[in-house]
Amino acid sequence: MVKIGIIGATGYAGVELLRIALRHPGVQVAALSSVSFEGKAISEVYPNLKDICGEVLADEDTVIEKSDVVFASLPHGLCEPLAKKCLAKDVLFIDLGADFRLQEEADYNEWYGLSYNEPALHEASTYCIPELHREALKTAKIIGNPGCYPTSIGLALAPALKDGIVDPNSIIIDSKSGVTGAGRGLTQTTHYPDCNEAFSPYKIAAHRHTPEIEQTLSELAGQKLFVTFVPHLLPVNRGIVSTIYASLKGQAELDELIAAYQAFYHDEPFVRILDKGKAVNLKNVRMSNYCDISLHLDPRTGRLILVSAIDNMVKGAAGQAIQNMNIACGLPETSGLDMIPPAF
Amino acid sequence: MVKIGIIGATGYAGVELLRIALRHPGVQVAALSSVSFEGKAISEVYPNLKDICGEVLADEDTVIEKSDVVFASLPHGLCEPLAKKCLAKDVLFIDLGADFRLQEEADYNEWYGLSYNEPALHEASTYCIPELHREALKTAKIIGNPGCYPTSIGLALAPALKDGIVDPNSIIIDSKSGVTGAGRGLTQTTHYPDCNEAFSPYKIAAHRHTPEIEQTLSELAGQKLFVTFVPHLLPVNRGIVSTIYASLKGQAELDELIAAYQAFYHDEPFVRILDKGKAVNLKNVRMSNYCDISLHLDPRTGRLILVSAIDNMVKGAAGQAIQNMNIACGLPETSGLDMIPPAF
Amino acid sequence: MVKIGIIGATGYAGVELLRIALRHPGVQVAALSSVSFEGKAISEVYPNLKDICGEVLADEDTVIEKSDVVFASLPHGLCEPLAKKCLAKDVLFIDLGADFRLQEEADYNEWYGLSYNEPALHEASTYCIPELHREALKTAKIIGNPGCYPTSIGLALAPALKDGIVDPNSIIIDSKSGVTGAGRGLTQTTHYPDCNEAFSPYKIAAHRHTPEIEQTLSELAGQKLFVTFVPHLLPVNRGIVSTIYASLKGQAELDELIAAYQAFYHDEPFVRILDKGKAVNLKNVRMSNYCDISLHLDPRTGRLILVSAIDNMVKGAAGQAIQNMNIACGLPETSGLDMIPPAF
Amino acid sequence: MVKIGIIGATGYAGVELLRIALRHPGVQVAALSSVSFEGKAISEVYPNLKDICGEVLADEDTVIEKSDVVFASLPHGLCEPLAKKCLAKDVLFIDLGADFRLQEEADYNEWYGLSYNEPALHEASTYCIPELHREALKTAKIIGNPGCYPTSIGLALAPALKDGIVDPNSIIIDSKSGVTGAGRGLTQTTHYPDCNEAFSPYKIAAHRHTPEIEQTLSELAGQKLFVTFVPHLLPVNRGIVSTIYASLKGQAELDELIAAYQAFYHDEPFVRILDKGKAVNLKNVRMSNYCDISLHLDPRTGRLILVSAIDNMVKGAAGQAIQNMNIACGLPETSGLDMIPPAF
Repeated sequence: MVKIGIIGATGYAGVELLRIALRHPGVQVAALSSVSFEGKAISEVYPNLKDICGEVLADEDTVIEKSDVVFASLPHGLCEPLAKKCLAKDVLFIDLGADFRLQEEADYNEWYGLSYNEPALHEASTYCIPELHREALKTAKIIGNPGCYPTSIGLALAPALKDGIVDPNSIIIDSKSGVTGAGRGLTQTTHYPDCNEAFSPYKIAAHRHTPEIEQTLSELAGQKLFVTFVPHLLPVNRGIVSTIYASLKGQAELDELIAAYQAFYHDEPFVRILDKGKAVNLKNVRMSNYCDISLHLDPRTGRLILVSAIDNMVKGAAGQAIQNMNIACGLPETSGLDMIPPAF
Repeated sequence: MVKIGIIGATGYAGVELLRIALRHPGVQVAALSSVSFEGKAISEVYPNLKDICGEVLADEDTVIEKSDVVFASLPHGLCEPLAKKCLAKDVLFIDLGADFRLQEEADYNEWYGLSYNEPALHEASTYCIPELHREALKTAKIIGNPGCYPTSIGLALAPALKDGIVDPNSIIIDSKSGVTGAGRGLTQTTHYPDCNEAFSPYKIAAHRHTPEIEQTLSELAGQKLFVTFVPHLLPVNRGIVSTIYASLKGQAELDELIAAYQAFYHDEPFVRILDKGKAVNLKNVRMSNYCDISLHLDPRTGRLILVSAIDNMVKGAAGQAIQNMNIACGLPETSGLDMIPPAF
Repeated sequence: MVKIGIIGATGYAGVELLRIALRHPGVQVAALSSVSFEGKAISEVYPNLKDICGEVLADEDTVIEKSDVVFASLPHGLCEPLAKKCLAKDVLFIDLGADFRLQEEADYNEWYGLSYNEPALHEASTYCIPELHREALKTAKIIGNPGCYPTSIGLALAPALKDGIVDPNSIIIDSKSGVTGAGRGLTQTTHYPDCNEAFSPYKIAAHRHTPEIEQTLSELAGQKLFVTFVPHLLPVNRGIVSTIYASLKGQAELDELIAAYQAFYHDEPFVRILDKGKAVNLKNVRMSNYCDISLHLDPRTGRLILVSAIDNMVKGAAGQAIQNMNIACGLPETSGLDMIPPAF
Repeated sequence: MVKIGIIGATGYAGVELLRIALRHPGVQVAALSSVSFEGKAISEVYPNLKDICGEVLADEDTVIEKSDVVFASLPHGLCEPLAKKCLAKDVLFIDLGADFRLQEEADYNEWYGLSYNEPALHEASTYCIPELHREALKTAKIIGNPGCYPTSIGLALAPALKDGIVDPNSIIIDSKSGVTGAGRGLTQTTHYPDCNEAFSPYKIAAHRHTPEIEQTLSELAGQKLFVTFVPHLLPVNRGIVSTIYASLKGQAELDELIAAYQAFYHDEPFVRILDKGKAVNLKNVRMSNYCDISLHLDPRTGRLILVSAIDNMVKGAAGQAIQNMNIACGLPETSGLDMIPPAF
């Protein structure tokens, strides 16, 4: 049994990770921490866990002390010291935040306004969307777990960019995220009467996930590319739908494109390519680790339209972190992740 | 492995039962049927099941043929012939509908307008909320699986009525149910723009679950009683909250009442009695088989207020059916039912 | 034109009052104040008002200075000094908060933990649900505008209590309120992911509106009575539905009861008694000043069931305040209040 | 007073039109018709109208007989005969459906599968988004009222295309519509549990509003253009947000673009151009005739991002129809349309 600990266990990604881990057959939850609720039982903060998990929230050092694998779900800028301690103790460190996602310090500097104080940690770290970077995990000591938007976008565009189907400079991404994406912290925007029966874009062409998206897509395309990325706040709890537009390089048949996608993801347990004529719906992936992708052509304008859906809290955060752990620890990749999305 | 079949698999309770059964370690899904979608794969009707369950929808006889246990989720009035066939083949029959819930044919006649054509079947059948009637399952061949409202109400009132804490003639029940309770069929009432940002009572003091509620409560109280029962349609997908009012027979301390409830349900894995000062919230039981109950006193009027919450599709239908099957088949009662309610 | 001012204009009741007042043919909005946003334009805080109202938020004294009628929508305990200033200047003061609702200081003391520092002000003040206390407004200088729950409950029970139809000691009230009832302030309970797909009672038998409800009902019944009152948080923006249970004193025919209610409210423009067999729905009163009431009998238990619906922000707050102002100022009572509830 | 009639008064656009018309100071509602509910009072179908409008639903001929202006809100293909009758009687005919929107019969044929049987009617008809085609109304006898999506898109792109700011062949439109856009008819897609907590694109690059959008934009650009248009179903009742992407032709400063938009719409009472740094939110236009537009630059890719929001039932249907009538009948353009969007 792998002993895991969660730093930041009372955040949304943290508590979702706990929920998955508690039913993971190869995992034992060893310790949890929370700055805000230290000393309280997690089930006092989250009454859904009553009689299921009575773990008392400890401090970060206790978590690192007791665990083989430490997950951290914290605001950016806080994870270098934790990663360093874990590395020193040979504890696998998986950061659900942004501190180990960007290869170029310049990007981190530009979009997050901070520097890499410990470059050696970043060299020892790996960014990993498993379907695209699985190999890198074999020797990983520090894993930068991908952001929710970049996961939904990277998976949707990977075959098209790898196979050179679309013009890399034509990519426009219109994403819609459920409100849990904004986290547990209280804001006017996520106050129920402000958020319900509302819909709005935010951080238009300025969201911090942009460089992470471009990093993955550029790597796939084999050339530096830039995207237009506009996220919107969707009045649902969970899920991200990304509608992606790109110009086809040449003639293309939809049947062939779908077949190419199905071949690309043939052995992937968590990616489902929809049949021709079907469109992705957020509801079909909720509460699961699936990424659904549908392909559509606009022959009148020569554009490919890709639509992907994930649960932002599972495939977009906690589920993918578990998937990365499974691979890194030699467990079956789907272990603990066989949740079936409910029909409603 | 118990081979199970589901008749009416494309209804909401049917497909939720399938979802649970597919992850039940002691169960194999042998066959599914649907009158509306016969010949189609269930995943065509419910795309959330894509790549998870490719089972093609068959007819009822095929289901009975292939199964050790048959679940039926159908409109009332259709289950006697199915139960008869199952009984003849020694197949356990679990009816999620109303045909085997009422002991008195007169009640069935009054509230459903139909008769019991095969009285012998009803004698061979058992109605079972497991926490209250578990023993009866040992010899059951036909199980009447309880309705959603009666489950939420029976569990909430059982200790108070058994211990004679409240006046049996004073019970008023104000229930609120998510829209899945109205089923998959299209109605104006459940059309999104009619239902969203709306709230309304329905079948006021006239809901068909009333005799089932009174049957359970009368049995607990040891005397025939009548209740006022008013359900409301709640703009959420899942869940029932029942707020129950009853006059205390004498003096009572809240601490003692809570302790009595905790003792009553001490060994029950699916009933959680909240601590003093906490109130039940539907969100803490969603997607799980839990029933949460909180107790409150109104000392100014001498009333006990009980609030219970269940997921109408799980503890109120499919989950409880699996729980009943587990007991009847000698499997661990919690098998396949250890879902943790998500925090959001 | 009556010049009105709003103190606390950026709270939910305040801004809704502003919205109504801006289209009131007999009113001119003279000044607005807000402690949190003083110096900002109201349309910066509420962008729905862009190009409609550019009024800059001032301080309280400016509002009192410029207005013939001052509305205050503030937390309790802050209105005595404002009322005093208004009284001194012969400005009509309408308090949407709780400071002038309770006739008995003891009630205010018990439920709000504060005293009446200026008893003379309270003697000069009038509590007014217009349909029940219209006469009192003729000489009013300070009006205590009713709470949302007490309005929905007082109107529903008035004919039954006045006519002695029900036992005054049997009243149980199960209310459900939209989230705007909790105000604009941020709380975990009203954070979208906590509130959406959730449902819960709160302040069970302990809500501060209880003494106000009992004050109105006792007056109607002609005897001191106590009620059990349990409010619930409903995941919609607006509206209150109150389901009310009371034991009939004798035999009663539903037709006659409905006729009695229709007679009682015959001349009231804002109360609609539904026809036999129809039940109230929150959606039919949203965005309007209507109170819909439906009556139902439970002959099996001898109880009357009343259901009422209002928009908590209109008839439950701002609309009723305007209605009170109209009467007190000699304007047509429906002036500015002829909003038709939208069908969706 | 203009006497108006509504054919198809029980559809969503019809009943919203009625709601607006009932409070329009220059209008008298003369007659309503509905095939489904003929002979019933409209308030039986829509109980929100109880005590407000008791009009009994008649047949189409009665409506034409009694009215100066007839609005029709029907499925496509039904309006030519009605328009013909109105023309013969010199009654202004305003079609809220699709039959008089497309100038090219070939487009109607391709996208709706029908022909223009009465070409003379189409020559006598005018398509009119008032802000763009107001002049054409002066002599109009038949008005093709614009679709909801085309309104939100045409207004957002008009200044950019007229001024040649963007490349006409680069336009990608990602729209999101509330569920009332799908109408009152029952479908699985709009069944509450299927629709709630869900999100999905539909009719991807194949929506019937596409030729209407292209007709307006081509006219503005002065050249035939094609767009990629993808609508999505948004789990709210009302409103459309369109996020529009287009490549800038040259260098552009956001301040200047915003200033140009503000100048373009300076005298328009229903178009609001947001200040720099603000983004459109659907909630700020609900229940009103406003169209809000915000402009954003993505300097990294040289794209302009336009976001517009309207209430699909008001500016996208009934409100705009009233606005067109006001102009055509010589009434003040804003008459009956001064609804303030509520803050929540």
